[in-house]
Formats: sequence, structure tokens, C-alpha cells
Amino acid sequence: MKKILLLHGPNLNMLGKREVSIYGDTNYASLNDAIEKRGAELDLVVDIKQSNHEGELVDYIQNATGVADVIVINPGAYTHTSIAIRDALLAVGLPVIEVHMSNIYKREPFRRHSYVSDIAAGSIVGFGPDSYIMALDQAAKMGKKLPDDS
Amino acid sequence: MKKILLLHGPNLNMLGKREVSIYGDTNYASLNDAIEKRGAELDLVVDIKQSNHEGELVDYIQNATGVADVIVINPGAYTHTSIAIRDALLAVGLPVIEVHMSNIYKREPFRRHSYVSDIAAGSIVGFGPDSYIMALDQAAKMGKKLPDDS
Amino acid sequence: MKKILLLHGPNLNMLGKREVSIYGDTNYASLNDAIEKRGAELDLVVDIKQSNHEGELVDYIQNATGVADVIVINPGAYTHTSIAIRDALLAVGLPVIEVHMSNIYKREPFRRHSYVSDIAAGSIVGFGPDSYIMALDQAAKMGKKLPDDS
Amino acid sequence: MKKILLLHGPNLNMLGKREVSIYGDTNYASLNDAIEKRGAELDLVVDIKQSNHEGELVDYIQNATGVADVIVINPGAYTHTSIAIRDALLAVGLPVIEVHMSNIYKREPFRRHSYVSDIAAGSIVGFGPDSYIMALDQAAKMGKKLPDDS
Amino acid sequence: MKKILLLHGPNLNMLGKREVSIYGDTNYASLNDAIEKRGAELDLVVDIKQSNHEGELVDYIQNATGVADVIVINPGAYTHTSIAIRDALLAVGLPVIEVHMSNIYKREPFRRHSYVSDIAAGSIVGFGPDSYIMALDQAAKMGKKLPDDS
Amino acid sequence: MKKILLLHGPNLNMLGKREVSIYGDTNYASLNDAIEKRGAELDLVVDIKQSNHEGELVDYIQNATGVADVIVINPGAYTHTSIAIRDALLAVGLPVIEVHMSNIYKREPFRRHSYVSDIAAGSIVGFGPDSYIMALDQAAKMGKKLPDDS
Amino acid sequence: MKKILLLHGPNLNMLGKREVSIYGDTNYASLNDAIEKRGAELDLVVDIKQSNHEGELVDYIQNATGVADVIVINPGAYTHTSIAIRDALLAVGLPVIEVHMSNIYKREPFRRHSYVSDIAAGSIVGFGPDSYIMALDQAAKMGKKLPDDS
Amino acid sequence: MKKILLLHGPNLNMLGKREVSIYGDTNYASLNDAIEKRGAELDLVVDIKQSNHEGELVDYIQNATGVADVIVINPGAYTHTSIAIRDALLAVGLPVIEVHMSNIYKREPFRRHSYVSDIAAGSIVGFGPDSYIMALDQAAKMGKKLPDDS
Amino acid sequence: MKKILLLHGPNLNMLGKREVSIYGDTNYASLNDAIEKRGAELDLVVDIKQSNHEGELVDYIQNATGVADVIVINPGAYTHTSIAIRDALLAVGLPVIEVHMSNIYKREPFRRHSYVSDIAAGSIVGFGPDSYIMALDQAAKMGKKLPDDS
Amino acid sequence: MKKILLLHGPNLNMLGKREVSIYGDTNYASLNDAIEKRGAELDLVVDIKQSNHEGELVDYIQNATGVADVIVINPGAYTHTSIAIRDALLAVGLPVIEVHMSNIYKREPFRRHSYVSDIAAGSIVGFGPDSYIMALDQAAKMGKKLPDDS
Amino acid sequence: MKKILLLHGPNLNMLGKREVSIYGDTNYASLNDAIEKRGAELDLVVDIKQSNHEGELVDYIQNATGVADVIVINPGAYTHTSIAIRDALLAVGLPVIEVHMSNIYKREPFRRHSYVSDIAAGSIVGFGPDSYIMALDQAAKMGKKLPDDS
Amino acid sequence: MKKILLLHGPNLNMLGKREVSIYGDTNYASLNDAIEKRGAELDLVVDIKQSNHEGELVDYIQNATGVADVIVINPGAYTHTSIAIRDALLAVGLPVIEVHMSNIYKREPFRRHSYVSDIAAGSIVGFGPDSYIMALDQAAKMGKKLPDDS
Repeated sequence: MKKILLLHGPNLNMLGKREVSIYGDTNYASLNDAIEKRGAELDLVVDIKQSNHEGELVDYIQNATGVADVIVINPGAYTHTSIAIRDALLAVGLPVIEVHMSNIYKREPFRRHSYVSDIAAGSIVGFGPDSYIMALDQAAKMGKKLPDDS
Repeated sequence: MKKILLLHGPNLNMLGKREVSIYGDTNYASLNDAIEKRGAELDLVVDIKQSNHEGELVDYIQNATGVADVIVINPGAYTHTSIAIRDALLAVGLPVIEVHMSNIYKREPFRRHSYVSDIAAGSIVGFGPDSYIMALDQAAKMGKKLPDDS
Repeated sequence: MKKILLLHGPNLNMLGKREVSIYGDTNYASLNDAIEKRGAELDLVVDIKQSNHEGELVDYIQNATGVADVIVINPGAYTHTSIAIRDALLAVGLPVIEVHMSNIYKREPFRRHSYVSDIAAGSIVGFGPDSYIMALDQAAKMGKKLPDDS
Repeated sequence: MKKILLLHGPNLNMLGKREVSIYGDTNYASLNDAIEKRGAELDLVVDIKQSNHEGELVDYIQNATGVADVIVINPGAYTHTSIAIRDALLAVGLPVIEVHMSNIYKREPFRRHSYVSDIAAGSIVGFGPDSYIMALDQAAKMGKKLPDDS
Repeated sequence: MKKILLLHGPNLNMLGKREVSIYGDTNYASLNDAIEKRGAELDLVVDIKQSNHEGELVDYIQNATGVADVIVINPGAYTHTSIAIRDALLAVGLPVIEVHMSNIYKREPFRRHSYVSDIAAGSIVGFGPDSYIMALDQAAKMGKKLPDDS
Repeated sequence: MKKILLLHGPNLNMLGKREVSIYGDTNYASLNDAIEKRGAELDLVVDIKQSNHEGELVDYIQNATGVADVIVINPGAYTHTSIAIRDALLAVGLPVIEVHMSNIYKREPFRRHSYVSDIAAGSIVGFGPDSYIMALDQAAKMGKKLPDDS
Repeated sequence: MKKILLLHGPNLNMLGKREVSIYGDTNYASLNDAIEKRGAELDLVVDIKQSNHEGELVDYIQNATGVADVIVINPGAYTHTSIAIRDALLAVGLPVIEVHMSNIYKREPFRRHSYVSDIAAGSIVGFGPDSYIMALDQAAKMGKKLPDDS
Repeated sequence: MKKILLLHGPNLNMLGKREVSIYGDTNYASLNDAIEKRGAELDLVVDIKQSNHEGELVDYIQNATGVADVIVINPGAYTHTSIAIRDALLAVGLPVIEVHMSNIYKREPFRRHSYVSDIAAGSIVGFGPDSYIMALDQAAKMGKKLPDDS
Repeated sequence: MKKILLLHGPNLNMLGKREVSIYGDTNYASLNDAIEKRGAELDLVVDIKQSNHEGELVDYIQNATGVADVIVINPGAYTHTSIAIRDALLAVGLPVIEVHMSNIYKREPFRRHSYVSDIAAGSIVGFGPDSYIMALDQAAKMGKKLPDDS
Repeated sequence: MKKILLLHGPNLNMLGKREVSIYGDTNYASLNDAIEKRGAELDLVVDIKQSNHEGELVDYIQNATGVADVIVINPGAYTHTSIAIRDALLAVGLPVIEVHMSNIYKREPFRRHSYVSDIAAGSIVGFGPDSYIMALDQAAKMGKKLPDDS
Repeated sequence: MKKILLLHGPNLNMLGKREVSIYGDTNYASLNDAIEKRGAELDLVVDIKQSNHEGELVDYIQNATGVADVIVINPGAYTHTSIAIRDALLAVGLPVIEVHMSNIYKREPFRRHSYVSDIAAGSIVGFGPDSYIMALDQAAKMGKKLPDDS
Repeated sequence: MKKILLLHGPNLNMLGKREVSIYGDTNYASLNDAIEKRGAELDLVVDIKQSNHEGELVDYIQNATGVADVIVINPGAYTHTSIAIRDALLAVGLPVIEVHMSNIYKREPFRRHSYVSDIAAGSIVGFGPDSYIMALDQAAKMGKKLPDDS
């Protein structure tokens, strides 16, 4: 049975309370319910973590070594500033899927650059909670090594 | 029944013959078969067009006015250079889903900028032929106006 | 009798159907009617062409050699991306008037640069359909060589 | 009867004495005669001012509050350097038409940026003295609020 | 009675021990005494927190939801690098006052950019401990929505 | 008794008539009344000057030599363009407090740079008329040489 | 017998009619005669195509798959703007020789960048019609894979 | 007898009172005495003007038409910001010598660019009051047209 | 006896498990053994800390006040992004030696900038585990104030 | 009989010993043999020089005055850094052909700029030893003044 | 027995006479004594060369082919400007250690970029004469091919 | 008696043979005659050197230690590229006067930056041979330490 580490970056725990015009009105608990439900349908063990701490996200990623098969990550604000998270993802060597609920290209220019995109298998941007569901569907098909990742 | 205009940009017709290490070995015909099969499952009418001509892609988009409900587009190289396609998409006012099979962030720096991303509902990058399938799944859920597009 | 080649770039045929808050609600047919009416008043033969194809616009410009006396052009999105159109205008060596209906300076930063402005006799920006009328008025006064164009 | 404030920026009073290859040989007095003649034809009260002083141009603009209906301005060199004039134009809230006699795009790169263009209704560049006449024609049609200026 | 969350960013706890030529010789404890004294005079409940951890500062901001009326923040070094703190401030939607004791414009160029300034109600820079006192005075006058913040 | 030169830059005399959504609805006269009232409470002689002319502001600053103890300045648009005002402030060698009523960081990017900030004792941005009051409070505490200004 | 696809980009058909000071006075027909003559001397089948259409150039390149052995291309203005042509050249995987008649480095700065140079075997710039002849000479020596192209 | 317009830009009247470590301790009156003395020795009529007003400096330059033979100018802070002064110098068409007393290259980076240097006959930077004397010596040798200025 | 704080930044605990082609195959435990062995030989008390948390690294640095004599730091990914760590190092005022095992100049361009280099006594880059040993050797010779650090 | 100065820049004497994957395995002596053989066939006197010294290359170029008819130069690394060589080429006023054996556009970005290209008659890049041969062929046709070089 | 080529770039021969606050007061002769002493202790043959001539440094590097095992180089000012030295180092293919005595990151911004760092095995910056000693220690351990240099 | 080292950079020996429209028609020998004549009048020993070699110029500067009192240098093309010459000038610590005969600001943009200006006492640009004479006049007044050079 395949194991997924699903990471929410900073402020995603505020979902539903936060900038509804950008993030929609789904709240954080129901988002995670939807993720777990889909995980179950796909026979995936999904370990969901959230942290506002860059270092803690690094810790979670490191701990995935030998445990998870795929990492699905919405790095939130750290998408644009964290080389430490990038390095942790490179260190564990697992396939990564990058997820964003909002369309980061419609927002401030500094949200256009991601330190994760070029080391991820793929990115899904702008589909709200469905961004995560789509990522799980893809994760379910992935092995430890992406065929086109060499 | 919902109608989808699915546009392949330049050189996508070379799929399977072209840079296999980047685009995989699916060929163009079987990609379209997979798209049509999924469209049928989702009760969508999918109109598939390909062109190497920027102007022709603009024509196809304009002609979607009053015909299609959603546009799924992989603008290929025009992603990075065509304001004309951007303007056509703005002109028809339909929801747009941007699709790329390869991970454009792993390649030359000039592929990092898209003239479509910030006017699309969302973007799906790097999942090979599945990028299109995921887009169709989302298109099936979309109305003519995206709720978060104001 | 003086001959004018009047070129509409990509998406201008969508006028009236497209982004009314930016382009106003005049439609494309009535715009051309107004242009022709004014041309007649000024004793000009106005040949109106529109194309979404960069190459076709280049063709039209080349074909003006030995036929037209002045070129009035609204290059639309190609204003900002087409060196081919610039080169065609340089090749035929006719006086050029650049026209934009909307105020391109109020929009995205990439619309601030024009490949045509510095080789045109002059530019008229932001007066809606009147931008074309003003250009015709000026074209009517122009010879094949602009006095200040050396 | 509509009132127009027509502002000439620095060095425009040197017209005819100055760089004839760029500005033509019309002199300053005959330019203003032509402006006044056209104003009269259009039933406009045209108040013509010139100053080499940025602050004085700001004063003239401020004093137009409640007096003028439209401002026609050739900010000369201040086009490229004066945020104070921009702010004054924003403060009075009248429609603005930007005018340049020479084609500023054919000259030094620092003349390519205008602090006025994006807050003006429109810009007319490169038609010599006619640039002003065209602006008056447009001003004659304008109300205090431009319809497309929101 | 109004509640204020007052946040000190990284290294502010070193005050008095650290770079006296830049930050002056007030120490951290006496700074907080002065803040609390002023808070009491203004009938404010001031909750003072300091952290060297970006994530902990995000936690403190999130926890202010429904508790604090205004946030006074000196983000220290995170001013220039943290989008996560910016996002947390946007998420809680409370009025924010940005405070710096030293004049950040006299120092390295990378201290000139702030990720907080454009989402704050206002900024106070360079007045040493008084920067905080001035911020409290303003916070005492603020409601949950800033009138000029729309 | 301490003397303050308080300078309003260009267009501040339009306060109340100008862009109310940005600057609030206090008018210029009542702003100065509030400044004078606060000056009196603090036992300060406040000399208030306004000018739309960069050169006149330079003159006022030069004339403060040997007369004023502190300069409070809202350079308005000249904040971003005037090295002459910067040089005048350096020449007189008095402590300077920079004031802005609106939050200049929420506006056009060219308003992010100030030629005054790095030579001022401190800056107060975004608190409307209170920005001046806060500056007076600080000016009242200042000597001719700022302790941290070496 | 070796087959060469020789592509002329936009406006090259204007040769002899166009900017003689830059391109010389050879006309387009005699250029092609010279090319064909040299091709015959070298025992090459040279298929000469010209188009003003980016998309058509892409089509011609795609159609060379399995037909041509080498592509000689003067992409004209598309040198500097077309990623689509670059991608087509990458897709067919044939050796490419880039040719320019004029010295593009003596002209506007935007002509300094080529999207073809770094994927070509080599570039020949500035020798007028001879640029093509030199390219044919080299093409005659090339196999399908350039030895130094890995 | 040759006539020289010698212009001091903003804040040069503060000489001797201002930043002695940069400008030396010569005062403004004795600088002008030295200039006049040297002018007399060289049989030059030297008209010395100073202004803090950009516009007034433009006026002085315009008024030199038909009066002065050479302009010696230390544009002070306007060196780096004034296109209006540049345009005035271009308009009068007299030879210009640019003078700076301090070494502008040792100071802030924004002092490295001059709008006058490339239209001047030559520049003299960093020799204190002698910079002016050297300029007068050169002016004495100059005709109305510089031989190398075409 | 001299005390050294030796800090490993994020992901260094993954050594030996991580990107062996870049970091070599020494594992983290044996690296620390080598450091401790060398420390003992040099009569140094070496306090080794690792953290993935920027804030925790700041805490460790602050706690070195009055305890350590020299700080040896490999800030890992925080080298390129953390002003907070820079500020902490400035705050404690101890001599700092920057260490990197891999050659950061051979990697992504964003690894070329370090926020630590210009405040360190020196930097050692690219010698694998030996980078630390060399740093200890130097630390053994250092006093609390570097002679060339003024 | 025409005389050619053929200059090899730094490190070209290492040919065959150096980076074979970039420069091929021709060695330096056989390259020069091929050049001399071709020169003889073309009735050219070819003077071949190589130097690692920028100044010596300048000397060789200066000495070509009145001796050589054409200069063929592969400036090697000095292509990208030497204005002195550019100036020497401008000083002697002979036609110049720029040659590179490797494709400099496939390498580090700093190799994309040449200080020679825009003052050369033409450039030949990427054809290995043949680049020189092609240059000789062209040189044989050149007079002292290039017809299109005005 | 291993052979080291140790290269001092321009102005290093001035050591002890030159900018003592930056380079310390060790003089050049005693530096070389220390280097030779350490070389002897490590059983290395150290060939020390200094030159102010870029070309001569290139010559020395080329001559190391087949003679030296490792190159230790302090390229001085050529660090930041010489691609020729970089190319020579690439050409000989020996392991390189880059050395700087002063901390180049504390100085002018143009000293932050090195053309040698990314092709060196490692860099040692800021330890005065010890920088060389540390380099020798490392060189003593190196073979002709660095294990992590592929 | 004061000693001057006067250095001519690369290509200055070509004076009179080279680009007469830029450098005038004085030849190199008569320039040096004029320099020596003026030196004699001023009781200066002027040692004139010219070199096309950056390293040789560095040598000459180093050799001036303890010999010359002032260095007058026209670094020619090395003005814009040589940090080695800058470092040599810093190393000898003598006052430096920078001289250019042509107006470097009228030419290519890369000639606008000088590595010498900010470490020179002053710069004289654009006065042809007189630039040197003016420099000698100033050198005659200088001591070993410039008063304003601290």
C-alpha cells in the first residue's frame, strides 16, 4: 500500500477564515476530510501535516525518508522563499507534486517564482481544494522514481 | 451537454517523434484518443485542434465564442511569446485551463514565463498526457464564469 | 488620389464583443463604416484589412509596395512582440501611423513597449474609434516621404 | 462654452529657434496662433500657458480646478521626470490629453517613459503642430469625466 | 477595552547587548516596561511577544484572530524576507502598524524592501523605543477596519 | 524655545480637494490648524511653508540655517525625484523628520524610493494628518544633532 | 545524394527592394539562383522555401523529418522572437546552420539575441549572399548527427 | 570680446557653509571672486548666475541665445535629474563645459549619471574651485561651434 | 581553554543519505566525530548544534554570547535567505568562520549569494568535511576581535 | 598579392590538448597547416600570430597598419572582455572577420557577448577549423573598405 | 613527490607596502617564505610565480601541463575580469584551489563575482597568509582528478 | 622638484592615425612634445610611458612608489575593464588624475563606467590634448596626499 506525505505550508490552517475572495470558503477541516476520503478511495495512506515553521516542514520531509512514496506539498508562502525546503526535498529523493489552491500568477509578482517547481514532477495551480485531489490521483500512479525525472 | 475547445499549440503534433526524453513516447494520435475517450466518459463534446500558426490558434479561440463552454489549451512555445493568444482568450471570456505535458520549469529560463497563466483558471504542468485528462476533469465541473475569476 | 492601407491587427475583429470596459462598445463593422466614410470625405482610397496572423499582416504590408501612399496600422498584440511587422514596414519604406484605441499605458507593463513607435511618423493612443479617424486626417496630408523622417 | 487649459512645458517657447531637424521650423508664436484659431473654430476657450518651471506648471494645473474642462499638455522634458505634474493632474481630476510634437520614441531611451501617459485619456505623438490641433478636436468632444477612465 | 498584539521579531531580545551604534542603549526589558506603561495610560491591553522563529511569529499572528484589535509589529530581519508573516497578517485581517527602531534606509540595500509596508496601515521608522510608543498611540485610535484601507 | 520648519511639498495644498480615497477628507487649512495647535501645546514655533516648486523648497531649507532646530518635511512627489532637496537638507545639517500622510507603499512602484529617508532621523508613513502631529512630538525632543546620526 | 532544406524567414523575399544600405542590392531571385547553382556544384538537392508566417516555417521544418539531411535557415525577424521555430528545429533533430546576410550586431539591441544560435551547429553572419553559400559548403560536409552536438 | 554664461546649480550658494569634508572650505563669494578675476585675465565677460530652481536655470540658458559664446555649468543635483536643462542646452546650441567641484564618483551611486556629459564639449570633475578656472581657460579657446561636436 | 560554537544548518543532518554526488559519502555522525577529534587535538571545546529551523539557529547564536569565543557556521540553505542569522551573528559580535562542504558556485545561481560572507572573518568552500577541520584550525588562532575586522 | 593578419587569441595554442568535447581533436599545428595551405590556394600571404597577452594582440593589430589588407581574428576569451582589442581594430580601420571554432552560444552566458562582432564585417561561429578556412575565403574577396560598412 | 604551481596575481608583489588595513602587514617575501616552509613540511615541490600580466599568468598555467599536480591561485584583480585565466585553467584540467587573503565580500560589489570559483575544487577567502597555507594542506591531499569534480 | 608619472593606455600611440573624427588630428609625438613643454614650464619632471599591456601599466604604476609624486593617467580602453590598474593605483597610494581626450560619454554605453574615477582626485574628459595639459597644471599643485581624499 502506497504512502503519501501531504504537507500544508504556513497559513493553510487558516483556510476558510482567510481571504475568501482568493482561497474560496472551504474550511481547513473539510479540506482534509476530502483529502482523506480520496486517499481511501485510492488505497493510499495519506499522512497530512501542516506547519507555519519552515524548519518543521523540513523535519517532516526528512522524516519521510524510507516511509513515504510520494510527497504532495503546498508550500504556501515558503514556495517563494525557502531553499531549505527545496534542499530537503532533494535530500529525500522522493517524487514531489506541487500544489496551490489559488492562482499564484494572478497575485503579487513575487509569487511568480517557485523554489519547488523545477524539482517537482509536476505542479497543479488554481483549482482550489481539487488541486490536492488531482495531486493524489497522480501520486497514486507514481513509483519512487519518476520516469521523466532523469 | 458541455462543449470543450481543446487546443494544441505548435509542434505538439510531433509528439512521439520529438525529444522523447522530455515529452515521453506517447504519440500524438494516441494522446488524442485518450482525450476523446475521457471526454466521452465525462459527457463532454471535445473539439480538438492543433496548429503551428499563432494566428490560427487565435482564430480557433475567437470561433469558440457562443460555441464552447471551456477552453483547454497547451500553447506550446506560444505560451512564452504570444500576447495575441492571451488577448483572444480575454476576448472570448471563457474559462481557460492551461496545460503542459513537460515540466517547463526544468528547462530554459525563457520557458518560466507564461502569458496565459495569470488569465487562466488554473494550470497543470508536468504530468505528460495526464495533464490533459486532469484538465478535462476540471473543465467538466466549470460553468461559463469561474466563481473566483472576478 | 491618395491610397491608404489600413491594417487591423489580431482580435480587433472582436470589437464590440470583447472587453467592453477597455475597448468601448463600438462594433467592428461600424468602426470600418466610420473609417470608410471619413476616407471618402478626405478623397482617400482606404484599403482595410484585418488579420490574426502576423505573417498575413507582413504580406499585406509587403503588397502595399507601389500601391499605397501611407500605412495606418493598429498592430494589436503584435505591437509588443513582432519584429517581422517592423521589418516589413521598414522594407516598404512608406510613412506609417500607429493607432491604438485603448490606452495601452493603463494596462499590463508588457504593453508599454512598441516595436512600431520609433519607426512610425507618429502615434495616436487612447481615443477609441476616433484614433483611426485622426490617423486618416494626418495620412491625407502626408507624402510618400515624411519631411522629418530622415 | 467649453474651456481648455493648454500647457506647454519647458523649452517649447524656443520652438523654431531650436533643433529644427527634430521639431520642424514652425515658430512658437505661429503655433499658438494656429491653436487659438482652431480653438475658435471649435467654440473653445483655450487658455495657453508655457513655463520652464515644474512648479509653475503644477500651479497652472491646480488653478484649473473649477475653471477648465479639459487639460491639453505637452510636458516636454518633464514628461519623463515629473511626478509632481502627474500628481497635480490626478488632483484636479480633469480629462488630460498628452501631446508631443516630435516622435519621442526615435530619440534617447530615457524619453520612452512618460509619467503622464497612463493617467491621460490619450496621447498624440509625432505630428508636429498638428498634434495640438488633433488634441483640441478631441477635447471638444470630452466631458469632465472620461467614460473609459474609471 | 482595546487589545493590542505587539510583536518583536528576531534579535530584538538582544536589545542593549547588540550593535549599540545602530540600536541605541535601551535594553529589551526597559523597552517593554515603557511599552506597558504607555499601554496602561492609553487603556490598552498590550500582549507583548518576541520570537526568533518566523513560524512562531506566524502562530502569534494567527492566534490574534478574534482576540486582538490591532497588531503592532517590528518584524526585524523578517521584514525583508518573510512572505509567511505577510500572509498571516493578511489572513487575520486586523489593522497593522509596522515599527522599526533604527533607520533601515541608512543600512544595507537589502533592508530597503519590506514585505509588510504595503499591507500595513502605516509605518514608523527610526525613532528608537519611541517608534513603539507612537505606534501604540495610533493603535489606540484604530478600529478593526482602517477607513483608508479599502 | 525650539523652532521647527514644517514643509509641505507639491500638491499638498490641494488636500481635501484631491483624491479623497487616498488622502482622506481633511482639508489643507484644518491640517495646518491642527499642526499649529499641537506646536503651541509643545511650546514649538512652527513655521509652515508649502510650495509646488522644487527650487522654492530648496530655498526654504537653506533659509532655515541658523533659524530652525528641526525640519519636518513631507516632500510629496519630490520625495522620489529630488536630489536638490536632499542636498539642501544635507547642506543645512539639521535633523530631519520625513512625513507622508498616505501609505506610499500601496501605490505605484516608483513611490517606493525616497531620496530623503536615508538622511532623515526617521520616517512616519500612512497616518494621515496624525503623521505630522507625531513628527512634531518627536521634533520637540530633538536637539540640533541627532545622537544616532553620526 | 544529400538534401538540404533552405529556409528564408520573413521579408527576405523583399531583398533588393528593401533597405539597400543594410542588405545590399542583390535581389531575391538572383540570390536563389546563386544558391541553386552552388547546390548543384556540391551535388546537393536544395529545397528553398520562404515564408512570412512563423507557423508556415514551423510546418516546413516539421516536414523535413525523414526528407532533409541538413537545415540552412535565415530566420529573419523570427530569429529574435520565435521559440516555436526553435522547438520545431529541436523536434526534427537535424543539423542546423544559422545564416544572416546583414551584421545583426550593428543594428538595434533586440537583434543581438537569437533563439536559434545555441541549438545550431554554427552561425554565419554578415557576408551578404555569401552567407548562404558558405552554409551550403558546410552542409555538404555534414551528416545527420553533428559530431560535436552531443 | 568673448562672453561666458557661468551657471551654478542648486545649493552651490551654500558653499563654505555646507559639507566641508566634501566641498572644501572656500566660500561662495570668494569662489565667484576667483572666477571673475580669471575671467578678466582671459579677457572674458563672465556672467555668473546661481539658482536653486530648475526652471530658472532653463531660463538663464535660453536667454544666452545670441548673447553668450560658451556656457560653463555646474548643474549640481540637477546633473542627475534634469532633462529640461539638457534640452535647454541643446536648444541654444552653444558649446557647454560641465564642471563639478567634488568628485561625484566617490559618492552615492545615483550621482554617477549625468544628463549633461554626453552633450557637453568636456567635463571637469573633482578639482574644487579650480574646476571652474580650468573651464574658463578652455572656454577662452572655444568658438561657437566645437570642431569635434558634429 | 577556547570555546567554539559549531553550527550545522538545515539538511546537514542528512549527510551521507543525501545527494552523494554533491556532498560525498561521509555520514553526519562520522563528520561530527572528525570535528570533535580535531577540536580535542587543538584544545578546543567544540559545541556542535544542528537545526533545520532558522529561528533555532538564531537562538543558538544568541546563546553563544559570553560563552563561545568563535562561531563556525555552515548555514546550509539559510546562507542565501536568512537575514535573521546574519543579524544574530552581528548581535553577538564574535568572530565567524563560514563553511561549505560543496562548491556552492557550481550549483544554481541563487546559491552564489551569501548573507554571511561579508560579516565573516573568512569563508572556506568546497573541501568536504575538511572545510570544517580547516575552520577549526583557524578558530584556534582567533581572539574575540579579529584584527582586520574594523 | 593580398595580405592577411590571422590572430589566435589566448589558449588557442592549446588546441588538441584542451577540452576536446568542446574544441574537437584537431591540434594547433595542423590547424595552422590547414590555414596556410588554404591561404596559398587563394594566393594570400597569411601572417599567423597567437598570443595569450591582450596587449600583444593589440600590438599585432596596430602593426598591421599599412601591411595587412584584412584581419581574421579569433579573440578567444578576449572576445568577451577586451575593449582594447576592439579599439585597436577600430584604429587600424581594416576589414575584420571574427571567427570561433566552438559554438559560443552553447556555453556559459558570459560568452554570448562579443566586443568584436558589431565592428566586424562578419562572424563565423561553430564550424571548428573550417571557421578559419571560410574566413580566408571571404578575406580573399575583400578590399580595404567593406562596401556595406558605412 | 607532488608538484604545486602557486600563482600570485597582479599587485600581490606589493604586499606589505599596499593597503595595510585590508591586506595586513606581512610582506611579500615573508609570505613566500612561509609558503615554501609549509611546502617543504608537506613534501611538496612548490613553484611560486607572480605576474601583473594576465597573459603571463595564462602562460604559467599552460606550462603546468604535465608538470604540476595541483594549481593554487590567488588571481587578484583578474579574479573578477579574466575569462582567459579561466579558460587556461579549464585547458590544463588540473585541480585548482582559489585563494584570497582579504575578505573580498567586504569590499566593492564588483569583487563579489569570481570567474574561477565555479571551476575550482574549492575556495579559501579571508585568512590572510594562512589562506595559502590551508590551500597547500589541501593540495597535498589531491590527485590529478578531484573525485567530486565530474 | 616634483615628479609626475604620465601614463598613456592602449592605442594612444596610434593618435593621429586613428579615428580622427573622435580623437582629432594631433599625432602622438606632438602630443608628448606638448606635454613635455608644459612640464618644463611647470618645473615638473614628467616621465611619459605608453603601453598596450594592462600588466605593463600595472608595472609602471608599482614602480612609481617612492619615485613619483602624482600619477596622470589616460587608461584608454582599460578605464572600463581593468581592476588590476585600479588596484595598482590604490597600492601606490599616490594622487591620481584621470584624463580622456575624447568625450567618452558620447560613445558606446560601455564607455560610461570607469574603474578609476572614484579613486582619482579628479577627472578631465573631452578637451583633446589639452586634457593632459590641464592635468599637469593640477598635478603641479598637488602634494602626496590629497586634502579631500580621506
